[in-house]
Amino acid sequence: MSNIVIALGGNALGDTPQEQLRLVRETAKAVVDLAQAGHRLVVVHGNGPQVGMIQKGLAYAAEHGAVKSEMPLAECGAMSQGYIGFHLQTSIQNELTARAMQAGAVCLVTQVLVEEDDPAFENPTKPIGNFYSREQAERLTREEGWVMKEDAGRGYRRVVPSPVPVDVVEKDAISALSREGQIVIAAGGGGIPVVLHGGRKESVPAVIDKDLASAKLAELIGADTLIILTAVDAVAIHFGTPQQQSLASMSVAEAKEYIAQGEFAPGSMLPKVQAAVQFAEKGGTALIASLSKAAEAVQGKSGTRIFA
Amino acid sequence: MSNIVIALGGNALGDTPQEQLRLVRETAKAVVDLAQAGHRLVVVHGNGPQVGMIQKGLAYAAEHGAVKSEMPLAECGAMSQGYIGFHLQTSIQNELTARAMQAGAVCLVTQVLVEEDDPAFENPTKPIGNFYSREQAERLTREEGWVMKEDAGRGYRRVVPSPVPVDVVEKDAISALSREGQIVIAAGGGGIPVVLHGGRKESVPAVIDKDLASAKLAELIGADTLIILTAVDAVAIHFGTPQQQSLASMSVAEAKEYIAQGEFAPGSMLPKVQAAVQFAEKGGTALIASLSKAAEAVQGKSGTRIFA
Repeated sequence: MSNIVIALGGNALGDTPQEQLRLVRETAKAVVDLAQAGHRLVVVHGNGPQVGMIQKGLAYAAEHGAVKSEMPLAECGAMSQGYIGFHLQTSIQNELTARAMQAGAVCLVTQVLVEEDDPAFENPTKPIGNFYSREQAERLTREEGWVMKEDAGRGYRRVVPSPVPVDVVEKDAISALSREGQIVIAAGGGGIPVVLHGGRKESVPAVIDKDLASAKLAELIGADTLIILTAVDAVAIHFGTPQQQSLASMSVAEAKEYIAQGEFAPGSMLPKVQAAVQFAEKGGTALIASLSKAAEAVQGKSGTRIFA
Repeated sequence: MSNIVIALGGNALGDTPQEQLRLVRETAKAVVDLAQAGHRLVVVHGNGPQVGMIQKGLAYAAEHGAVKSEMPLAECGAMSQGYIGFHLQTSIQNELTARAMQAGAVCLVTQVLVEEDDPAFENPTKPIGNFYSREQAERLTREEGWVMKEDAGRGYRRVVPSPVPVDVVEKDAISALSREGQIVIAAGGGGIPVVLHGGRKESVPAVIDKDLASAKLAELIGADTLIILTAVDAVAIHFGTPQQQSLASMSVAEAKEYIAQGEFAPGSMLPKVQAAVQFAEKGGTALIASLSKAAEAVQGKSGTRIFA
């Protein structure tokens, strides 16, 4: 029996509530396969498209007077945890019931601590939300203090910091539920980012990488295995060239060399390999695999294993 | 030490995220006062204004093409659990830290089971969302299947069923966390309403009364005390007349008589007294009290006690 944290991409959740509910049924099957094999599971999901939709929708409604006020990014992230967590938990529960399994599934609203002096706050890089004209962008900087960046000729977008996760506020509750046999959904979207300010937690407009958050959570709750799911069955080098080669495993040293050589795409495979390296360096087993072959990956029959 | 479920009104949470965050600081103090007195606590909150804002905002954005699709009521409720739960949990955690207390606080996304054949589904009564013209109302009935009712000359509104809560899906997780010393925020907005359909849970567009949900949850987790918070210090009869009289206590029989006499306003004090009666009939202590005097109410020094 392994104690597993599994990280699931937000892009795999679809664009509408109906589509999401349909897609999470497949996710639920893969998750319950692992539970049925006897593993303890914590599920971390991404939320990029979903938090974008919530933020954009409520900002639009506020701008046109349909609702009273805009919703800050941290609160939109909290909403996305409720929205996605509900679909995941109900689908996993249904799958458990269908297999006559006793386990439960539950989603915890989760905050992730970042350092107030994280250099990311000086250099926001993560684009979120709408595209704006130059004039609009200048107004938003003036009125809202937003940092705006030109995005590949398509207009201006707000960029927010992507600080490093240093703690998961609700880690004790996550551990307790996991010990009780619950499949726990936590740290959705990388968690709601908070800093400590005069001893109090305060949320900040930032986005924490969900793969790094899942590696940190896996470390904090003493998980032995981290599975980072992707759209492909395994990590490849020389990706998209005739020399493309899938890797069944790589050492941390090899992974770092590949990273230095620019083998992995930023915003795509790179953060997954970085998170895997981080967890492997703490002594855990890190796997990068596809959803449908997650159970095989744990058995060493699919995916890429990253080891120290 | 008591095992307490405390039900908090959504109207006490303000209209904007900034206001809500300010108001929940006071809530957090009252909640932590009870925790400091040695009680175990589960907090149930309302979400009327908040789920209305989310539903209205995202519907407006979808209608104008700013986001891809509308958000069903159940998913809006899940979002409101994340949004309000985040503010409550972070504020309670901050208050615990300020008092150097070890307890944690955490919010669980919660589904509440209702019966598919609940008569409420034949007679939707709970108005939600926007006002519409007669023509719009007729179109929404035709296109979306919504039941629309004329609302006191102000236009037409969608009405949804308010079925009776029969089970809380995540009750085991709530109990487990409470035993671990966590202050648990659960069943927000009365819970996300689900029915069992061919063995699977499916969400339904309905609103469960949060006071009734908290009474059901208190019963299910074996709580001994249910505190229903209101804007006033105690229940009164002959309310708003020269004969107005506050009640320090009333028996279930007396409460039922007052209810039959129309002493309590529907949608306001009535559901609170009904929920209190329901819990008292199961053998628990039910209190109706104000937030600032919740700790005094537990000591019998404020509020109204309803007993079997």
